[in-house]
Amino acid sequence: MPDVQQRRYFIDLSYDGTDFYGWQIQPGTRTVQGEIERTLSTIARRDVGVTGAGRTDTGVHARHMIAHVDLPFGLSDMEELIFRANRLIGSDIALHSVREVTLEGHARFSALSRTYRYYVSRVANPFMRKYQTFLPTEGLDFELMNTAAQALVGRQDFTTFSKKHSNVFTHICDVRHAEWHKVDADHYYFEITADRFLRNMVRSTVGTLLEVGRGKISPTEFWERLYAQDRTQAGNTAPAQGLFLEKIVYPTDIYIDVS
Amino acid sequence: MPDVQQRRYFIDLSYDGTDFYGWQIQPGTRTVQGEIERTLSTIARRDVGVTGAGRTDTGVHARHMIAHVDLPFGLSDMEELIFRANRLIGSDIALHSVREVTLEGHARFSALSRTYRYYVSRVANPFMRKYQTFLPTEGLDFELMNTAAQALVGRQDFTTFSKKHSNVFTHICDVRHAEWHKVDADHYYFEITADRFLRNMVRSTVGTLLEVGRGKISPTEFWERLYAQDRTQAGNTAPAQGLFLEKIVYPTDIYIDVS
Repeated sequence: MPDVQQRRYFIDLSYDGTDFYGWQIQPGTRTVQGEIERTLSTIARRDVGVTGAGRTDTGVHARHMIAHVDLPFGLSDMEELIFRANRLIGSDIALHSVREVTLEGHARFSALSRTYRYYVSRVANPFMRKYQTFLPTEGLDFELMNTAAQALVGRQDFTTFSKKHSNVFTHICDVRHAEWHKVDADHYYFEITADRFLRNMVRSTVGTLLEVGRGKISPTEFWERLYAQDRTQAGNTAPAQGLFLEKIVYPTDIYIDVS
Repeated sequence: MPDVQQRRYFIDLSYDGTDFYGWQIQPGTRTVQGEIERTLSTIARRDVGVTGAGRTDTGVHARHMIAHVDLPFGLSDMEELIFRANRLIGSDIALHSVREVTLEGHARFSALSRTYRYYVSRVANPFMRKYQTFLPTEGLDFELMNTAAQALVGRQDFTTFSKKHSNVFTHICDVRHAEWHKVDADHYYFEITADRFLRNMVRSTVGTLLEVGRGKISPTEFWERLYAQDRTQAGNTAPAQGLFLEKIVYPTDIYIDVS
């Protein structure tokens, strides 16, 4: 084997999660990671491994996912590779840009924060049915939901809003921001930023906050449930199609910029 | 049979055409008309026939379609029927409102005009891939396209942009407005309003106008092709997913308003 110098690149990409069994490769299913690896490998004529910033579940979307690849190519060859990959890959994935990082830069471990949004609509819209959750409720109390959401901010144990068999060392996440926003009278979204997320965490949190909004449980009860560190106390899990991975932030010094 | 007084109602509705074989009922396929008739009949417990303002082809969307139904119900019963139908019908159809019209009001024959829009994008967007046509072209000359489009306005014979076996008496359509609009540097749409449209007419017109925009044919050639009344002179038919039925206008005196 010739001694080729590997370089590392971050690819910024988005996908519509509707027709994928989530991000992570699984044999016999269509996954985002699988599609990207297969496409890049075909064009580069070598096995290309892709490491994502995180995993999204079946049906969950990503407006911005970051994935890294190691290849012995220069930046312009990488841009050409991305350009050609976009023509070959399914139209439910788009590769937006590529940026070189140091070999220590890691899509998953270098990330400082991730931001998710969950979209809810009070009106049915055939064109948005896969990108928001239709909840034909008369009144959803925003103040109550945002009072409850304040409990999430800070370093918290999220056992209550985690999945049973999540294989993690700790359930502690550092939530920097968690708030409901109104787009207009009929459309709103919940935005949450944290250093890390557990499986199912956003959907479980949103489902329980919506119960607060409908007056089924009080903000105080919501706080108590979170502090109980008991997953039997979570409300319903909100459906996948309303959830978007919005943004991932990295330290700027990992980027190698040609300028 | 008891002598029940039929009343006529216009239903304003929208649908995502992706998963339908168009508007019109055909045995063994999923159509918009078929879904609506089946749903209304189930709830009303009688056969309900639905007459649309027009037919849209497979994959074509409608932001506003008007359909009429004849039923011996009052307005509030109709509103209840629509409300319950929305819960039962597929999420790719939404029934928005219902309005009583005179028995002479006809969804198809009373329409004064129809407006269609065709959406094109220069950037790939996984979330919009079923609602616009992705055309990664460097430059599309807007002035040329709009110069060519002016030929369409007025009473014109649209044989050039019609389908071979369209079973109509005349190919003359009265086009009131036809223009390309820029949303931003990467997104634009073509809007056309006419008294009537032939099958395939908008997609064939758009496909040919895009050839003008790419400099393949001149505006003068476009005018000549239209005037040739010869369907072999049309360009490629633009794909279905970019096309939306936007609006249908009726004379105001057909509406029976309770006020």
